[in-house]
Amino acid sequence: MTNRPWSLAECIEHYTQSGIPALSVWRNVVDTDEGGIGIDQAVRLLRSSGLQVPALVRGGFFPAWEHAQREKALDVNRQCIDEAAALEADMLVLVVGAVPGMPLAEARKQVGDAIAALIPHAEACGVKLAVEPMHPMYAAEWSCIHRLREAREICESLKHPLVGMAVDVYHVWFDSDLEEEINAAGKQGFLFGYHINDWRVDTQKIQGERGLMGDGCIDLPAFQVMIDTAGFTGFHEVEVFSDKYWSGDQAAYLELILTRYRELMSAVAERLSAEDG
Amino acid sequence: MTNRPWSLAECIEHYTQSGIPALSVWRNVVDTDEGGIGIDQAVRLLRSSGLQVPALVRGGFFPAWEHAQREKALDVNRQCIDEAAALEADMLVLVVGAVPGMPLAEARKQVGDAIAALIPHAEACGVKLAVEPMHPMYAAEWSCIHRLREAREICESLKHPLVGMAVDVYHVWFDSDLEEEINAAGKQGFLFGYHINDWRVDTQKIQGERGLMGDGCIDLPAFQVMIDTAGFTGFHEVEVFSDKYWSGDQAAYLELILTRYRELMSAVAERLSAEDG
Repeated sequence: MTNRPWSLAECIEHYTQSGIPALSVWRNVVDTDEGGIGIDQAVRLLRSSGLQVPALVRGGFFPAWEHAQREKALDVNRQCIDEAAALEADMLVLVVGAVPGMPLAEARKQVGDAIAALIPHAEACGVKLAVEPMHPMYAAEWSCIHRLREAREICESLKHPLVGMAVDVYHVWFDSDLEEEINAAGKQGFLFGYHINDWRVDTQKIQGERGLMGDGCIDLPAFQVMIDTAGFTGFHEVEVFSDKYWSGDQAAYLELILTRYRELMSAVAERLSAEDG
Repeated sequence: MTNRPWSLAECIEHYTQSGIPALSVWRNVVDTDEGGIGIDQAVRLLRSSGLQVPALVRGGFFPAWEHAQREKALDVNRQCIDEAAALEADMLVLVVGAVPGMPLAEARKQVGDAIAALIPHAEACGVKLAVEPMHPMYAAEWSCIHRLREAREICESLKHPLVGMAVDVYHVWFDSDLEEEINAAGKQGFLFGYHINDWRVDTQKIQGERGLMGDGCIDLPAFQVMIDTAGFTGFHEVEVFSDKYWSGDQAAYLELILTRYRELMSAVAERLSAEDG
């Protein structure tokens, strides 16, 4: 999604050339209903590439007023789990959903119930389920889970090795419980995914204006140290939705992504060495 | 600000005709530097109108890298307090500020220190100071205080009858601690201000797209019941920043505001009566 203008085949070609070891896949790339190339073709491309697949993005959207709608959402998510398994993805990322007008406490309860109902299928397929806490500006329709604590509470209530969370810096950077919650999630083995990008200070729109690391105000080195300290050992996934970057040359953009990522890692190393000193 | 196209004199004329008892004033309306009419003229207009003034909006913007900048912010806020006193405003609303790149914990500490430093002047002038928790989408530059809990912790640490908070439904409606925090704030006498509006489900921009009560997805009757239960007895201030409404006829808009407000109050009465039954 970060190099959205590229096809999956183009992403694979450029990423492997650049030494990038992994690539998460969005459903619209796979699903023929959404103009995608189909799961079989996606599987063939990825298997032959040697790239790992951290996640299929995204399942979720569980809450609904009617029981039948909730059952339908579960069916869609079981299909997502099947696709994730076919792609040998480590996890399915869940944007859990929300319903305008439904009390958030009720929506959160429905999310917990839905994930519980998916566990048997996730077990059968060996696919992890990762709740992604989302920025409260998406609270109306996309997600009733915003804070890390809310995601942790769902993970704790289900207490299953396949249920954890995907932490995206964009959604949680301002959380006053950040360090405490990331530690708590790490200790309990809930840290499945980790997405990096930045919050641009000049943000005007709620979509399509994410920054690349260094474009914004998030203290990414501090975040990285927290995630490392909490024992996270998964991939560092650059996830940037940006109309600006999507409108430019993608190969040059990929170079910039790699440069910024290396700069971030150097800043992390400096900070750690300063702390040691 | 809700009827932004109107001058203060026009607001006063229409509000008194409509039986609205009070009007909060924004500094840009007063300050000649910002094209305002000047504090003396504003005071004259408001005194002769008989309208009450819940708040002068807004002071704050405390955190800064340099000591001298922080001192300058305190001076500006002392001037705000003077203006609030001249307007016989009950409170000065504080948008506390944030500095891109400054850790939010540090910014929050500076906010606490700044409000503490303002207390003597607030006492001398008899003006309350109301911290307004703001939506995290304003975390980069406008406010390091987002959750009700963060505002409560500042109020608790200062523990002064002139230090409390202004609760705006737009900024906190999604908070999973909403009821608990509003109760806690009410019990300790921290609930100074209460702003109502709505979150439009089709929100695309972070500014200028607020809804009028009923335009969006906030459970406003439930919020009102919480605020009432917590013992809030101040004004219900309609605060809507809306490019859409600002571009239309303001008199018709004021009628709509009053209609929507009455509908909300009816919904609250119905809910209370259902609970009693």
